[in-house]
Amino acid sequence: LRERGLADRVIGIGRRPTSLRAARRAGAVTSTTVDLAKGVAEAALVVVCSPVGCIVDHVRRAAEHCRPSTLITDAGSTKQAIVRAVDGSLSRGCRFLGSHPLAGSEKTGPANARADLFEDRVVILTPTRNTSTEDFHLLERFWTRLGSSIVRMSPEDHDRALAVTSHLPHAVAVALSACLPEDYFRLTGTGFLDTSRVAAGDPELWKQIFLQNRENSLSAIDRFEEHLDALRRALSDGDAEALENLLTTAKNNRDALGN
Amino acid sequence: LRERGLADRVIGIGRRPTSLRAARRAGAVTSTTVDLAKGVAEAALVVVCSPVGCIVDHVRRAAEHCRPSTLITDAGSTKQAIVRAVDGSLSRGCRFLGSHPLAGSEKTGPANARADLFEDRVVILTPTRNTSTEDFHLLERFWTRLGSSIVRMSPEDHDRALAVTSHLPHAVAVALSACLPEDYFRLTGTGFLDTSRVAAGDPELWKQIFLQNRENSLSAIDRFEEHLDALRRALSDGDAEALENLLTTAKNNRDALGN
Repeated sequence: LRERGLADRVIGIGRRPTSLRAARRAGAVTSTTVDLAKGVAEAALVVVCSPVGCIVDHVRRAAEHCRPSTLITDAGSTKQAIVRAVDGSLSRGCRFLGSHPLAGSEKTGPANARADLFEDRVVILTPTRNTSTEDFHLLERFWTRLGSSIVRMSPEDHDRALAVTSHLPHAVAVALSACLPEDYFRLTGTGFLDTSRVAAGDPELWKQIFLQNRENSLSAIDRFEEHLDALRRALSDGDAEALENLLTTAKNNRDALGN
Repeated sequence: LRERGLADRVIGIGRRPTSLRAARRAGAVTSTTVDLAKGVAEAALVVVCSPVGCIVDHVRRAAEHCRPSTLITDAGSTKQAIVRAVDGSLSRGCRFLGSHPLAGSEKTGPANARADLFEDRVVILTPTRNTSTEDFHLLERFWTRLGSSIVRMSPEDHDRALAVTSHLPHAVAVALSACLPEDYFRLTGTGFLDTSRVAAGDPELWKQIFLQNRENSLSAIDRFEEHLDALRRALSDGDAEALENLLTTAKNNRDALGN
């Protein structure tokens, strides 16, 4: 926002003064506070970036202290439980419209802040029938001016899709990383490193994401296991053709995704 | 070799004149030929870099045409089948000592050549009781002068370990990539991209690797599935503690591996 000159004031609200200081030093915010009520008091837009398990509470508290009729959004990796809890029920005419920017990495904290984080990324917006066109367009402009393109989905469709595109790869990376015996650590190459990278993400954050998207995550794991079993069977049968077909399907999909 | 001034002549042998031309243009080789017999005729060391399914044949043919008593090595991702086929049985006093540099990526061909490919990497050497100390030291010097460090393993131990550290992540990335429906392609972020990256590798190459290391790969997949099932069970039971323990084990392992 600051680098693109889209906001005169960016107020960072957090619990830890050290993190807030780091955010100021990184130039990510113009002022900071540990007091949520004070922080949101004059905001034109509130963006809640807490772990998914805290978002509902933080949205509600923000609504109680910001200017009447303020739009509140988030950056959470799950949407259904959050939207269901706060959609159309916030105090003082405030509204919530869910955002999920598909950006970021396994790294956390202001030390890893990047001004180009949202460039060429997708941001999913999850409006409901309570969402006004005006609010949708406001958030659409907000994210597109940061360099992202918008995909519009229902909270239910979002959680079903992200279970496959985000929560599943995390589950897979976690199982892969957890199954590595220590005496093999030195024998890993770029293949293992890439495939397991996201497992370095914050366990607390990811625990909340999985628990909030439990059913969809389980279905996604089932879906994955069917494909791994097909590969296992081809290998077990020594079926070179079936094996090559699977490897080729995977390559075609992966090539289509780009870098 | 050329950048570090370790060899006056590097002879590239291949099937496709276009690839050989590209290798010359990249500065990777000083001369090229499509004729294996001519190419190896004056070599002090022969490095066979074919797909694993062709290595045995190429090693045998090289032994028939190079100077008597020449040392031959390879860069194959499997070792047991290859070493068993050529160890101590090459013509004209030639010897084979297996190498596996844990370097490279999903990209192939001379267009992706990098002079620093082996810097800070591990190269596994797989000597047998037929291997002379002299030959071992020759290859040890060869790879360490290219910037790698050496790990010595039996061909059997190599294949068991690499099934977990390399062939398993490939299988996992393939199943993940193959299970992605096309309408979700645009909803993938860095997590999916990292976790599935190696699935872009050459299907023909990987088919041969899996078939050559079938039993170990199956055991590695079983090992992985046990851990994925544990995660699935924790999630299905809503067992937050078990889930967090698994996520933490995975993070600790992954953090220990570095970038």
